[in-house]
Amino acid sequence: MDQEIGALAGRRTWRDRLRAFLEQRWFTRLVLGVILANALVLGAETMVTGAALEVLRTVDHVMLAFFVVELLLRLVATGWRFFRDPWAVFDLAVVGVALLPATESLSALRALRVLRVLRVVSAVPALRRVVDGLLRAVPGMGAVGALLVLVMYVSAVIATGLFGRTAPEYFGDLWTTLFTLFQAMTGEAWPDIARAVMTEHPSAWIFFVLYILVVSFAVLNLFIAVIVSGMEEISEEERQDDAQKDERLDALAAQNREILDELRALRTRLDEDGGPTAG
Amino acid sequence: MDQEIGALAGRRTWRDRLRAFLEQRWFTRLVLGVILANALVLGAETMVTGAALEVLRTVDHVMLAFFVVELLLRLVATGWRFFRDPWAVFDLAVVGVALLPATESLSALRALRVLRVLRVVSAVPALRRVVDGLLRAVPGMGAVGALLVLVMYVSAVIATGLFGRTAPEYFGDLWTTLFTLFQAMTGEAWPDIARAVMTEHPSAWIFFVLYILVVSFAVLNLFIAVIVSGMEEISEEERQDDAQKDERLDALAAQNREILDELRALRTRLDEDGGPTAG
Amino acid sequence: MDQEIGALAGRRTWRDRLRAFLEQRWFTRLVLGVILANALVLGAETMVTGAALEVLRTVDHVMLAFFVVELLLRLVATGWRFFRDPWAVFDLAVVGVALLPATESLSALRALRVLRVLRVVSAVPALRRVVDGLLRAVPGMGAVGALLVLVMYVSAVIATGLFGRTAPEYFGDLWTTLFTLFQAMTGEAWPDIARAVMTEHPSAWIFFVLYILVVSFAVLNLFIAVIVSGMEEISEEERQDDAQKDERLDALAAQNREILDELRALRTRLDEDGGPTAG
Amino acid sequence: MDQEIGALAGRRTWRDRLRAFLEQRWFTRLVLGVILANALVLGAETMVTGAALEVLRTVDHVMLAFFVVELLLRLVATGWRFFRDPWAVFDLAVVGVALLPATESLSALRALRVLRVLRVVSAVPALRRVVDGLLRAVPGMGAVGALLVLVMYVSAVIATGLFGRTAPEYFGDLWTTLFTLFQAMTGEAWPDIARAVMTEHPSAWIFFVLYILVVSFAVLNLFIAVIVSGMEEISEEERQDDAQKDERLDALAAQNREILDELRALRTRLDEDGGPTAG
Repeated sequence: MDQEIGALAGRRTWRDRLRAFLEQRWFTRLVLGVILANALVLGAETMVTGAALEVLRTVDHVMLAFFVVELLLRLVATGWRFFRDPWAVFDLAVVGVALLPATESLSALRALRVLRVLRVVSAVPALRRVVDGLLRAVPGMGAVGALLVLVMYVSAVIATGLFGRTAPEYFGDLWTTLFTLFQAMTGEAWPDIARAVMTEHPSAWIFFVLYILVVSFAVLNLFIAVIVSGMEEISEEERQDDAQKDERLDALAAQNREILDELRALRTRLDEDGGPTAG
Repeated sequence: MDQEIGALAGRRTWRDRLRAFLEQRWFTRLVLGVILANALVLGAETMVTGAALEVLRTVDHVMLAFFVVELLLRLVATGWRFFRDPWAVFDLAVVGVALLPATESLSALRALRVLRVLRVVSAVPALRRVVDGLLRAVPGMGAVGALLVLVMYVSAVIATGLFGRTAPEYFGDLWTTLFTLFQAMTGEAWPDIARAVMTEHPSAWIFFVLYILVVSFAVLNLFIAVIVSGMEEISEEERQDDAQKDERLDALAAQNREILDELRALRTRLDEDGGPTAG
Repeated sequence: MDQEIGALAGRRTWRDRLRAFLEQRWFTRLVLGVILANALVLGAETMVTGAALEVLRTVDHVMLAFFVVELLLRLVATGWRFFRDPWAVFDLAVVGVALLPATESLSALRALRVLRVLRVVSAVPALRRVVDGLLRAVPGMGAVGALLVLVMYVSAVIATGLFGRTAPEYFGDLWTTLFTLFQAMTGEAWPDIARAVMTEHPSAWIFFVLYILVVSFAVLNLFIAVIVSGMEEISEEERQDDAQKDERLDALAAQNREILDELRALRTRLDEDGGPTAG
Repeated sequence: MDQEIGALAGRRTWRDRLRAFLEQRWFTRLVLGVILANALVLGAETMVTGAALEVLRTVDHVMLAFFVVELLLRLVATGWRFFRDPWAVFDLAVVGVALLPATESLSALRALRVLRVLRVVSAVPALRRVVDGLLRAVPGMGAVGALLVLVMYVSAVIATGLFGRTAPEYFGDLWTTLFTLFQAMTGEAWPDIARAVMTEHPSAWIFFVLYILVVSFAVLNLFIAVIVSGMEEISEEERQDDAQKDERLDALAAQNREILDELRALRTRLDEDGGPTAG
């Protein structure tokens, strides 16, 4: 609040100056450059051993320190509003992963350090727009997605019950079955699984064929939901064009009404005139 | 009939009161809650053994009893009209499956008890709309689907005749061949099958390549039928916008006709006037 | 010609009467029924042996005789125009296949007898429309299809040259390579093939990745060509709507011109009038 | 410059005459014929050995010489502008590949001689248009494509770190992992890989399921970007129709204004008139 007043009064608080510094072109480019360099370093780490690995790790730590400082500065500059910008929170999260203690049990988390590279998305506006667009398409997929999860769950409970003993490697318990059915949904290796089960349950093909048909149809409709939402954006623009056209038609109608009024006034004028003339 | 009269007269029969009770928000939410809890119970049953399984089975039976009572109440409340609502019939069918005797030969039917979970769809309006939408897309796919079934049947008879002896595990009889061709349609494992057959019939690739091309093209057109029907809905809205525009243009033309009439009246008026003036 | 004159004169030649007989509802339904029954017989032939097979073969021969007689009657009734109707030629071809001598070397042709079942398509108008629709989409796919064939041919010559000795079972000669690349295009088993080749040619992945990307992109564009042509039909209807709208706008402009003419005439009339009045 | 002046003056330089010669219909057809014949020769070379191969190689060399001469003539005829036409540069590149020395280490380049056949594309306008169309669709895919590459890179670094020791044949180093993930993206054989890894890392399914979902969604959006760009072309035409409609509406509005002006003039005229009349 007092910042805004300061800005209006022509004075700039140190926070304004800090924010201006962080938004300078050379600084945002430097950040993007460090992110890309960090991506290469993290990739290179998987390829070398010994002393070279030590060097790369040191470079990585320096870069991490740079990111931490940059994020702290942004946090200070924007205050609590920092947490209202989802991309800022995203930056904080992917950098924060690297600061977690790298114990044995968290070795998987260490591997996630490379998620930091995804900051490229938040740093490049074009990529940001694409991701925003992808996320906007998600709600439209919601109901179909929920239906798909429901169908998979019901199918998994049925398949675990029916085929659990025959093919435990595929249908042994609910999680294994869910993974198997996810694979079948991607169209992978389901004939092998189906044939393995059908040696004991000859009519198991009914389950597999129905599952493939229902799931394919649902996935197809997920696709279509996304395509149609893309189409609707185009259609929306057309509708705005149409609205403009409606306004033009309204303007024409208004003009016509004006013409009619003018004509009626003219007639009245003539009638008034005509009276005396005829008289 | 007499219910409606009763309702009109401000009196409510016990059926009306029962229906109102069943449609209360807390009751529909309770039903949805029991359905979801039942889904978890049925899933958990696949994971436990011994005493825990007994407990879960008892809980399941209680829930089943709840569904039976709820459906009976709905049946009583709505009378024969119950069977005109496809979703009510669906609820009855998926709950009814669990009441079938669980003999050895019907063990598969027992596994279908979990279909009951699909009542989530009939209980959540958003899912109901999605399924209604999916089903509406089916008729548009009818003719292409029939063509696909025809092509598969003809291909199956041909393949059984040609390759039945060479690869009996894939083309031994008509049903096996149909299953193999369904797999090939989903793009799975067909190269292995084709290569197995081609060791004896070197020109079998003609059959496989033609089958894949024809079936892919037909499936593609199934997809497109669904997409186009989705597009047509958007297009339909635009057409309604257009119809409105047509009405506006008609209104403009009517206005113009009015202007012309007015002008002609004016002229006649002047002609009448003009006579004496000139005289 | 003389038929038409006969028809005009109210007299019907025996050809007209024969054609009317063939077009009677009960007759076309009988033909469809025999086609469907024949489909079942041909399917059943693959499942039985011995005496039952003999019976089915006899039934099949009777049905074939029925088709031959029906086609001869249609040929006689319509004369040379029979060959101008592509569906009639299709019927003739699929029935004709069964009349070829069933020598050893033509055993594959015998298997094609079942193509006769495809007469269902020519007998059911709805299926006919679908196939007509599918065929209409083909020209739009022409150029992309030609490009795809070209890319496959070039890739096949390159792959045969590079990998022919390493993996002769996949790339031994041009035809084998073309079949392998067709499989890779359907996304089947290409990783196995690629890994087999990469043991000797470590940089073979460049070929496979490029081939998959280029071919997927081309196939995607084949799909889109079909979708877009479907869209264009809808768009065409809208354009006709638009053309109607243009006509309405033209009508409005014509009305306006009429109004203007009327007004100018009125002014002239007043000028003529006004002269004497002022005088 | 002086060519143009020459052309304007009605005189034709030898370059103009050369260009006219190269653009003659029979010559462009000859070139296309030699390209197609060369395609067959290059294909045939993979099938024969011994003396026949020598003959084919000689024929190929003659054809190559023909292409070199043709390109040199085109280069001479058009001068430096030759390099501004991307299709001309393409022709030069694919013919130039064959002139590289065929040493052992460049044997792969020798195999690329067949790329020359792709000159069919630059020689047939319909194919040229298709390729131009495909390339136009690429920029719209740019940002989604970049995102996809980013996701694959990040996933590859993570997978190499996590699974590198468990399944070195799939995740041994960054390049192997990238190839494995490309395969998984095409939906091939990923269940085998996932199951191999999950024996040691039971929760590896999280990685695979997330990767498949994210990549499928991104690829789907690549597809949609292409479809939508195709739609937009249609939509663009409609917008032009709309723009014409706007012009018509503007014309109508202008007419109406003219009518109003005319009416007001009429009124003024009557007022002037009426004065004396009333007087």
